[in-house]
Amino acid sequence: MNVTVVGAGIIGLSIAWRLVERGFDVTVLDSGEPGAWQVAAGMLAPGGESAFEQPALARLLEESNERWPAFAAELGVDVGYDDAGTLGLAMTADDLADAARVWTRQKLPLLRPSELRELEPALSPRVRAGVFAPAERQVDPRKVVAALRERLAGRIVAKRINALSEVDAETVVVAAGCGTAALTGLPVRPVKGQVLRLRGEPGLLRHVLDATVDGRHVYLVPRADGEIVVGATQEERTDWTVTAGGVHDLLHAAIELVPGLAEWELVETTVGHRPGTPDNAPLLGRLADDAPHAGSGSQVGSGSRVGSGRQVIVAAGHHRNGVLLAPITADLIAGLVDGEHDPLLEHFAPGRF
Amino acid sequence: MNVTVVGAGIIGLSIAWRLVERGFDVTVLDSGEPGAWQVAAGMLAPGGESAFEQPALARLLEESNERWPAFAAELGVDVGYDDAGTLGLAMTADDLADAARVWTRQKLPLLRPSELRELEPALSPRVRAGVFAPAERQVDPRKVVAALRERLAGRIVAKRINALSEVDAETVVVAAGCGTAALTGLPVRPVKGQVLRLRGEPGLLRHVLDATVDGRHVYLVPRADGEIVVGATQEERTDWTVTAGGVHDLLHAAIELVPGLAEWELVETTVGHRPGTPDNAPLLGRLADDAPHAGSGSQVGSGSRVGSGRQVIVAAGHHRNGVLLAPITADLIAGLVDGEHDPLLEHFAPGRF
Repeated sequence: MNVTVVGAGIIGLSIAWRLVERGFDVTVLDSGEPGAWQVAAGMLAPGGESAFEQPALARLLEESNERWPAFAAELGVDVGYDDAGTLGLAMTADDLADAARVWTRQKLPLLRPSELRELEPALSPRVRAGVFAPAERQVDPRKVVAALRERLAGRIVAKRINALSEVDAETVVVAAGCGTAALTGLPVRPVKGQVLRLRGEPGLLRHVLDATVDGRHVYLVPRADGEIVVGATQEERTDWTVTAGGVHDLLHAAIELVPGLAEWELVETTVGHRPGTPDNAPLLGRLADDAPHAGSGSQVGSGSRVGSGRQVIVAAGHHRNGVLLAPITADLIAGLVDGEHDPLLEHFAPGRF
Repeated sequence: MNVTVVGAGIIGLSIAWRLVERGFDVTVLDSGEPGAWQVAAGMLAPGGESAFEQPALARLLEESNERWPAFAAELGVDVGYDDAGTLGLAMTADDLADAARVWTRQKLPLLRPSELRELEPALSPRVRAGVFAPAERQVDPRKVVAALRERLAGRIVAKRINALSEVDAETVVVAAGCGTAALTGLPVRPVKGQVLRLRGEPGLLRHVLDATVDGRHVYLVPRADGEIVVGATQEERTDWTVTAGGVHDLLHAAIELVPGLAEWELVETTVGHRPGTPDNAPLLGRLADDAPHAGSGSQVGSGSRVGSGRQVIVAAGHHRNGVLLAPITADLIAGLVDGEHDPLLEHFAPGRF
């Protein structure tokens, strides 16, 4: 069976890879538009705020996190998978009160400032409290996508479509991130994030830092090569503007947290858009109003095949968790194409709104 | 007489333009290396701190400022010359105490916050005091250089030299900014400055703002097209690194001063190097140890002509005032090549250290 995956981001490529492994004839359409993975820091943090009131999403995040070590290993090249773990940090008493809700739920013991600075000597003396979350790791999304593209060499076609009717395949998987809204009518909205990249001597930081600094959330993700990703603003906006205020707020929080970063080079200021949904959980499953039904059979031409017996599956709207959810999304969607149906999918039906 | 100007920055090009007007056969060597003009804001501010204890420099700055309107007009195209004037601003009582020294010397009456906000409604309510300096104007150095290059079309040669002996001309004018040190042995050192450019709706600011914000000096130079130049750090360093701390400090001061800038686009983060000297006044005049003397006459080839009767003139080390001093430098140096000697030059002899 031939399958066309619409979207060459980390979700689309991961699904395509798993489909190829299952023996499908796969084509990936790459619109050439920027994807959220290009700026994403690659924190694999299943325990975050977003899952607080959503047990099904929490389970999906946890399961995918468990699949990451094997997923990274199977890619066969260095994708920056790093299991040093994450320090959750709070700068002020107010920040601590806020963060403590999540840390308590995660059953992580509170560390004193002296213990934190033993783990991360570069931390500011202002940091009031924190926790160590060993299960929250990181990967480099740019390296993951490069590895997936390598795996899928010859199957990726540079093509931007405006409607699914332009696709001629027995199964279409729409993994177009924010672009999914225009192709399917599903409620996927862009959530703007500004992200910086700093560069300096490797080794300043050992762990991912996930902090609240004077009421503002910031994370620092240190790569082995001396890059530190600083993110991210969260703005309900669609524009691509790197703003003075956004860059200022990220730099301010980063330097407050790790004063030594002031001397580091600012190498990138970027904008990405997380594909959000009404409940900010992903859309995973068959497109409701495109369920298989009898085609006319008598029509010819690719345009006439729309709706004629093919299936359309959606895998989009991963919001802040696209990188973390890539392994489980790929497994679940490849299984669905193959006729399986995992009960995990039930809570994420695209037609649930 | 043929003259080669080494350096295609705002100083070298201005000199070359005036030399062409006087009928000289002029060639400009453009090393292709970045010049301070590329990041300079183009404030024409003769009354600044640097001239406090140097009456000769103060007079040079004032005289050049008076020549700018005609210089800009003669270029015949829009070079962003804008005479709306400058607001000197102080954020805190400490900032005011610091700025008041300069303002008192300039005999500028202190304005109340309400008067300042009448002139600039976008100013933060935190601004404590300020002055209006109508004689401190601005020009866009990138437009000035473009206009000069247009005027000198056909005379600019892309060539980087490592020694003056590579130049075959009766008169050599070294206007190589920081590169002058290597070519002449004169004490010109790079003084690093980080400069940002923001972009938004034109009209937010009407005047140049020259402010001290919580002990840090910052200026905002608004262009007619919606660009605002934010500068500048002043660092005794030679590197080209845009740092997290430098960008943070500039954005912080700019947003504290004009909160509405938080929404503006950050379009450029750049580094330049001001060519500083021991007293931070320029080096203008004949190179002492290259005074005319009898050549051997019998040697052939361009290399053999070094020192054989030619004159070497220096125009470099303008530090923070290269744009402001371009008109008078061009007049004085073109005159010197032509056999004139203005007494203004006496205080700026290259051999004075």
